[in-house]
Amino acid sequence: MSALVVRNPPRPDLADLDALAGHGVATLHEATGRRGLMAARLRPVWPGAAIAGAAVTVSVAPGDNTMLHVAVEQCRAGDVLVVAPTSPCDDGYFGELLATSLSSRGVRGLVIDAGVRDLRALTEMRFPVWSKCVSAQGTVKETLGSVNVPLVCAGQLVRPGDAIVADDDGVLVVPRTEIAAARGAAVKREEKEAATRARLAAGELGLDIYGMREKLAAKGLVWVDHGDPRTKG
Amino acid sequence: MSALVVRNPPRPDLADLDALAGHGVATLHEATGRRGLMAARLRPVWPGAAIAGAAVTVSVAPGDNTMLHVAVEQCRAGDVLVVAPTSPCDDGYFGELLATSLSSRGVRGLVIDAGVRDLRALTEMRFPVWSKCVSAQGTVKETLGSVNVPLVCAGQLVRPGDAIVADDDGVLVVPRTEIAAARGAAVKREEKEAATRARLAAGELGLDIYGMREKLAAKGLVWVDHGDPRTKG
Amino acid sequence: MSALVVRNPPRPDLADLDALAGHGVATLHEATGRRGLMAARLRPVWPGAAIAGAAVTVSVAPGDNTMLHVAVEQCRAGDVLVVAPTSPCDDGYFGELLATSLSSRGVRGLVIDAGVRDLRALTEMRFPVWSKCVSAQGTVKETLGSVNVPLVCAGQLVRPGDAIVADDDGVLVVPRTEIAAARGAAVKREEKEAATRARLAAGELGLDIYGMREKLAAKGLVWVDHGDPRTKG
Amino acid sequence: MSALVVRNPPRPDLADLDALAGHGVATLHEATGRRGLMAARLRPVWPGAAIAGAAVTVSVAPGDNTMLHVAVEQCRAGDVLVVAPTSPCDDGYFGELLATSLSSRGVRGLVIDAGVRDLRALTEMRFPVWSKCVSAQGTVKETLGSVNVPLVCAGQLVRPGDAIVADDDGVLVVPRTEIAAARGAAVKREEKEAATRARLAAGELGLDIYGMREKLAAKGLVWVDHGDPRTKG
Amino acid sequence: MSALVVRNPPRPDLADLDALAGHGVATLHEATGRRGLMAARLRPVWPGAAIAGAAVTVSVAPGDNTMLHVAVEQCRAGDVLVVAPTSPCDDGYFGELLATSLSSRGVRGLVIDAGVRDLRALTEMRFPVWSKCVSAQGTVKETLGSVNVPLVCAGQLVRPGDAIVADDDGVLVVPRTEIAAARGAAVKREEKEAATRARLAAGELGLDIYGMREKLAAKGLVWVDHGDPRTKG
Amino acid sequence: MSALVVRNPPRPDLADLDALAGHGVATLHEATGRRGLMAARLRPVWPGAAIAGAAVTVSVAPGDNTMLHVAVEQCRAGDVLVVAPTSPCDDGYFGELLATSLSSRGVRGLVIDAGVRDLRALTEMRFPVWSKCVSAQGTVKETLGSVNVPLVCAGQLVRPGDAIVADDDGVLVVPRTEIAAARGAAVKREEKEAATRARLAAGELGLDIYGMREKLAAKGLVWVDHGDPRTKG
Repeated sequence: MSALVVRNPPRPDLADLDALAGHGVATLHEATGRRGLMAARLRPVWPGAAIAGAAVTVSVAPGDNTMLHVAVEQCRAGDVLVVAPTSPCDDGYFGELLATSLSSRGVRGLVIDAGVRDLRALTEMRFPVWSKCVSAQGTVKETLGSVNVPLVCAGQLVRPGDAIVADDDGVLVVPRTEIAAARGAAVKREEKEAATRARLAAGELGLDIYGMREKLAAKGLVWVDHGDPRTKG
Repeated sequence: MSALVVRNPPRPDLADLDALAGHGVATLHEATGRRGLMAARLRPVWPGAAIAGAAVTVSVAPGDNTMLHVAVEQCRAGDVLVVAPTSPCDDGYFGELLATSLSSRGVRGLVIDAGVRDLRALTEMRFPVWSKCVSAQGTVKETLGSVNVPLVCAGQLVRPGDAIVADDDGVLVVPRTEIAAARGAAVKREEKEAATRARLAAGELGLDIYGMREKLAAKGLVWVDHGDPRTKG
Repeated sequence: MSALVVRNPPRPDLADLDALAGHGVATLHEATGRRGLMAARLRPVWPGAAIAGAAVTVSVAPGDNTMLHVAVEQCRAGDVLVVAPTSPCDDGYFGELLATSLSSRGVRGLVIDAGVRDLRALTEMRFPVWSKCVSAQGTVKETLGSVNVPLVCAGQLVRPGDAIVADDDGVLVVPRTEIAAARGAAVKREEKEAATRARLAAGELGLDIYGMREKLAAKGLVWVDHGDPRTKG
Repeated sequence: MSALVVRNPPRPDLADLDALAGHGVATLHEATGRRGLMAARLRPVWPGAAIAGAAVTVSVAPGDNTMLHVAVEQCRAGDVLVVAPTSPCDDGYFGELLATSLSSRGVRGLVIDAGVRDLRALTEMRFPVWSKCVSAQGTVKETLGSVNVPLVCAGQLVRPGDAIVADDDGVLVVPRTEIAAARGAAVKREEKEAATRARLAAGELGLDIYGMREKLAAKGLVWVDHGDPRTKG
Repeated sequence: MSALVVRNPPRPDLADLDALAGHGVATLHEATGRRGLMAARLRPVWPGAAIAGAAVTVSVAPGDNTMLHVAVEQCRAGDVLVVAPTSPCDDGYFGELLATSLSSRGVRGLVIDAGVRDLRALTEMRFPVWSKCVSAQGTVKETLGSVNVPLVCAGQLVRPGDAIVADDDGVLVVPRTEIAAARGAAVKREEKEAATRARLAAGELGLDIYGMREKLAAKGLVWVDHGDPRTKG
Repeated sequence: MSALVVRNPPRPDLADLDALAGHGVATLHEATGRRGLMAARLRPVWPGAAIAGAAVTVSVAPGDNTMLHVAVEQCRAGDVLVVAPTSPCDDGYFGELLATSLSSRGVRGLVIDAGVRDLRALTEMRFPVWSKCVSAQGTVKETLGSVNVPLVCAGQLVRPGDAIVADDDGVLVVPRTEIAAARGAAVKREEKEAATRARLAAGELGLDIYGMREKLAAKGLVWVDHGDPRTKG
């Protein structure tokens, strides 16, 4: 495969992305059939960030950040950079300088299945980053990769222009063509959850709210008192 | 084994639990013979929580949170939910709704050898959680498990009604019948440590306070100056 | 090998150490040829600490903190204790009491490829610690090791008196004889980075600042528009 | 807790143990409610061993094999040594000499949640070992532990005298009081599996043999042909 | 997303698959641009198997093998079953019975990013399996998934009907539309490698065969003799 | 640091190396003070190899095998290639072609803290390799490193010309200047172990042979019979 940089993939509307960010990862994940969640090893480098943006994908060689610099040029306001190495790597591909560059273009954050550095600066800049680890280990600029091609990042297929939603719970991919449906499903779920939360806060049980008792009994669940002989082995 | 829910296991006194929380995990662990510490992979999802409660144990299938809902009904004020999957699992079994439900019953926290989600809400609610990871990955409600049976969580045997002590240092199990002894031992250790701390702060050495020099010499420890030939290999 | 405690290895000047702390791990690592970075598993137990000190090295047996007490006596103001177990170990070798003792001597921090405990106290004392994990698991005092001998900690060779620089990005070893050169290189790098940062903030691209375009083209990088046939496969 | 060595715990009959070994781990695990399986990190050091024996349990300090020597004296023909460190450890606690000693007493094998060494000798002696890893790292003889007390090994509670069954699929604990039931259940399962295997070998489908089709349809499984519009998203 | 079973996806020709198996994973990976290699955690459960087949993909819930039984019906001679759980799982989804069923249909092997069991039987049957681990842990039959939909397995996107090549070096995905090109490239690479191997065996150096010397010198590589002052620091 | 290739470091005598290989890793490790053992993640790719050779060290960039080709030229009969990446990497740096090249020069084996490939060919050639993993992932030839400089491999400092001993128990470094002492200590240990083995095989206990009983009693070890009240808690 040639090393390719694809320009101008279609992006979602910014209003759609903003709405997704408001719903958050856990709600969207549940509302959309529990698909698209990246591996739990990706964690925010500072707590509290919650974003959604259009994926600009970057495939990089291990220990080589050439293509991050190439990718910056392809970014515009509302994007999220999604970086996956071609084999597992903990190096610090990204730090204050690249964050400065992305910020100047209105990029909303970085998702990388590898390491980042300049943690203090990233935190002070409030530039949102989800990464596999923190490492000061530098990278070289020798080997090509690709920008805006479909790739697998932390276990999920990402296509350029897909919506990336990220917060303290992790990182979610919502395919571009499914954003409208996801928004609708998330609104419904939030309404339902708000009602459920109120009932739970008032002391009702999930067993009753979700109507679980009959199903549990049918499956054979048995309630006994402490000391009952059936608790022995 | 049938899937069992055991009602009303005996619990420790709340005053005893409060006292254990005050001593903290590290002191109690040292004071009670260095037993009962869960694996270090269990970490608080927000820093600073420090609790003790009566264990309500929950054995769950991987990726299935049915039994968490069943367990809520068995909880009362002063309890801590202790959840172990039957095989390793990172899924997000627990979030804001279950935390709301447990809070309404006065439950003091959750210890789970798996994942949780809704991290921001858990933090804002100040609901204490120790988990293996954070993951938005949802779970199903299909497979039975058991509540309030003895189980192994993160490497330690927990019996329902055992005291669970948890803080920034980790999670400790104190068997229900050993709580009084643990309190006594912890008080003694704290007194001793306070005295030691004062001496160390004043510049005395642990070598002298603990009387280690003679033993070290007997074992053959050798002090030499930099440049001494004995430092070569 | 005998168990050895080496007294009075030469140390760097404190002014040099202070200067290194000011440059930080990522800058020094880049400026000095990308050598000396300890493994990314070492993380600060509280965020924001940034120190440099002279290494006092400690080789310990797994689960045994005897030599930490021996090492304290060898420490002076400006030192950093560097602890490596002879086989992988997660135990909590170090806590509030040892931190009190080191603080009273002006020691600047601890780097340990194992566990620590008393996390809350360490945080409140603002005693800087980089460790592999947090664990309340106690250690014994039975087996000798060595102090101030060369050792490997988290993948890097450390000689007593080497400079240890540590911050949120990790832990770096700068050999004592290379400190002056490292300072000079770091100053140059910072000047260069400040200029680059300003240009990036103004919207210039790294591709242009670093002059990458020609090299990329020579290596065969291809830019295409979305929908171009070359993006298929 | 005092360091204790408990003599002469009750053991299962050797005939029962032999029968369990014949059924194997996977069959017994399925037949007895899917309980008691140690973590998958325990692997045989040479393939093909398949044993069952009475557990002699040993709790050891990290990096210290004192109690293995103490335990040997408590072993008799038909036993299996089960060793768990009090914190995670990869050291090589066990090798040719201890295997020679155990062999001379008729011990059937070793299960250890840590490392072993002398791999070639263990293989040539055909002494069965399941371990977490192989490591030549030696251990000391300084710290006491206990023999024949209940402990948790690789995630499972083991009581002295429990049956330990181990083969290429892993290590299973069958509580001593449940051996007879386990044997009966295993025989039934094997009969059933033999019939199923014959039908599967003849080309019948599990879907039909297990009567799954109706349940799958009720749950909403949909079959479509390649190219069907429902396969899009 | 509904739970879907897609029937009759197009498959490669068996002759093409046989040819791919002959080339092997490492050669094909190199010849086709170093794409498509699954993560190194997938290992053969017995050494020496080397296969290629058409992917029948299976998405399964953690701890639930329902869809394996559904998938068997979709398999035909020359296929390879590719199984990915929706979240990380070590359970033993697959054993002798399913292997018997697949064998009776001419299926060439199993690739699973989870555990398998009945290791001895799989070995004796010579049924090829690549898995993340071996575990006897049983699974339930409660939760639907999908068959023959695109999925990510061990870090690689697999579409039904893609070629799966697996041997002692790992598991490779070759997209169905790229098989012919892959065969051609592999033949060329083998010819080239045979020539290179002969020259290397005769004592020529890769430095000369690959013409590396000039490039190395240009990059600044320096050769010095032992003892040269430049080797100091 | 410049990228350096150091020619002709002093090597041990081949007769010394042969003697070390005969003693094996576990014996030498014990006999020489339990130092120098590489991390247990390094495993032989085929069982039964047992070698010793003179280290030719190679520092490589992640995913880049340039320096392996450079290193071959520096190898002579009796050497062992020791390869460490500058950051953790699983890629397959080494396969059949490089093994052919090394074999033609009489090199005894490879030790690499990364991946290798062509497992079947390496096994058939009987070329000994110890690696962190097996991976077909290819590497590039872009970034310089160094040959025959001191480096840390899998946790141990290796200097060019040190003796590398490797067998099924792992990989050991014996500094060149300590080989004679190591040989002597190993011979003594083997004599002692042979005597001990004979006594153990005859049924004597380690407790008696090593004179442990008195020390154990002094430390407070208590023997009780099953059912003794002291076994309760």
